Amino acid sequence: MDAVPDQDFTRRLSTVAAEAEDALTRLLGSSTLPGEIARPERLMAAMRHSVLGGGKRLRPFLVVESAALFGVTGEGPLLAGCALECLHCYSLVHDDLPSMDNDDLRRGKPTVHKAFDEATAILVGDALLTLAFDILARDEVSADAGVRVELVRELARGAGIGGMVGGQLLDLAAEGRFDKKRALTEQEVITLQAMKTGALLRFACRTGGILGKADASSRAAIDRYGAIVGQAFQIADDLLDVESDTATLGKAAGKDAAAGKGTLVTALGIEGARAKLDTLVAEAEAVLKPFGHKADILRATARFIAQRRT
Amino acid sequence: MDAVPDQDFTRRLSTVAAEAEDALTRLLGSSTLPGEIARPERLMAAMRHSVLGGGKRLRPFLVVESAALFGVTGEGPLLAGCALECLHCYSLVHDDLPSMDNDDLRRGKPTVHKAFDEATAILVGDALLTLAFDILARDEVSADAGVRVELVRELARGAGIGGMVGGQLLDLAAEGRFDKKRALTEQEVITLQAMKTGALLRFACRTGGILGKADASSRAAIDRYGAIVGQAFQIADDLLDVESDTATLGKAAGKDAAAGKGTLVTALGIEGARAKLDTLVAEAEAVLKPFGHKADILRATARFIAQRRT
Repeated sequence: MDAVPDQDFTRRLSTVAAEAEDALTRLLGSSTLPGEIARPERLMAAMRHSVLGGGKRLRPFLVVESAALFGVTGEGPLLAGCALECLHCYSLVHDDLPSMDNDDLRRGKPTVHKAFDEATAILVGDALLTLAFDILARDEVSADAGVRVELVRELARGAGIGGMVGGQLLDLAAEGRFDKKRALTEQEVITLQAMKTGALLRFACRTGGILGKADASSRAAIDRYGAIVGQAFQIADDLLDVESDTATLGKAAGKDAAAGKGTLVTALGIEGARAKLDTLVAEAEAVLKPFGHKADILRATARFIAQRRT
Repeated sequence: MDAVPDQDFTRRLSTVAAEAEDALTRLLGSSTLPGEIARPERLMAAMRHSVLGGGKRLRPFLVVESAALFGVTGEGPLLAGCALECLHCYSLVHDDLPSMDNDDLRRGKPTVHKAFDEATAILVGDALLTLAFDILARDEVSADAGVRVELVRELARGAGIGGMVGGQLLDLAAEGRFDKKRALTEQEVITLQAMKTGALLRFACRTGGILGKADASSRAAIDRYGAIVGQAFQIADDLLDVESDTATLGKAAGKDAAAGKGTLVTALGIEGARAKLDTLVAEAEAVLKPFGHKADILRATARFIAQRRT
């Protein structure tokens, strides 16, 4: 399988990141939209603090590139990607709170409750979560209301009880926060991570299939690809937590290990986790085979996610 | 204008409350839906604690009755009303948190962070907010995807930055939480309350117009009615805070006055606030005039909201 030269991938990643940054800056502007009464400046400032100027924008990138696979480009996928980025940022703001993971640093900056205060951070998360659905429901995302409402439902399903929020609760439970701590089985770790981080990355890829009204087999393929990169992302993240330092990560390193969190790195060891990543990249390539060269960027994305060092 | 006998109104209110309770119980069941990986039992228990067995279900009632005005009845309005109730309950759970209003009692029961813990309460709120959009996007709400996506967008607009969340931030600001405390002008109080509590009650009524695909003038009328009952609700609430006791309210009484929160009762005095309520009820009746007897229940609802004692 031919690969996209790395510089093409890197250029594409930074182009989409810049476009997402611009779009997010507009979305978090101070002017009210129809149906809004006022946008309190403190809230907007704290939302911008949490969303702007940081991150690889991997979720918008996956939306944009998976939509491009089905011939859909432009404003629609970019906005849908920004909705997902807002939702992702809300989860970071709430997870960082003192009563949750109690983190002071995020993307190299003070977390929202440190830079502002706890009440503001809770409201920032609530507002970003709400904004994600506001954005997905806008005409600019797709001319087809059926497409937009499907995006809303799928995102809500992936982000809610049975996805991201439920995964965070299971993660706290695994730390022994509610009851006695006990070691998770490998399968429990996989389930927890599929919920906590996997669901949104998978949804990012599914979004391309939904926006592109892809046929059932193509949708199944992009969904499977999303599940694979979701798992690879988490294993790479767990490896970074063990191997990197706080300055490089821009957030606290070694924290999961210190909390004794069950990860696949714990279950498989560092070498075992690396081998698992190689298997996942090969699986991603196999799933994308029917799409030929049109999927080159997504192939490079899987490798990038598995090999990332920050 | 003829009035519905009070017992008819009371019976209707309790019928819809029972139907909403049943629907919410089903929505908060333990079985996963398509797209969900697992529903963690602790999360479900805490969500049920916050949502079930309490409240007048005024928001579902307003959705059901305003939809009935346009000939839409059954599962659709009831589910849309439950979506709104989930969103309302999320706002109560987050507002009650120690770093927000720090309340121990809600609807006569310990608040979620007291009955469970703070992290669980944050996640319960996040999950309920997400569930609200999940519900609105379901086929059962309306066969028309355009209707559902409009509901999603309008709810997000009313509940987010420029509505409920923004209103809560302004309320904390008015208490002097971020900066020096200063007295609000009457207009500032009206804006704050229109955002914090008014937007959702107004949306409840608008939902009827959207579900019923009402014409522009009918939609404007039901929207205006919603704005009026939203304002009346808040003034009645502020009167109760001054005049009632904690046992009757099932939540802390006298708290707003103690916090020195600006309310219209402070601005207008108790008699002035009562007179304002009478004016609002008369306005509601005027707005509903074109609908004739079909709007009798909504007329009775405006009086009930203005006169409620718990």
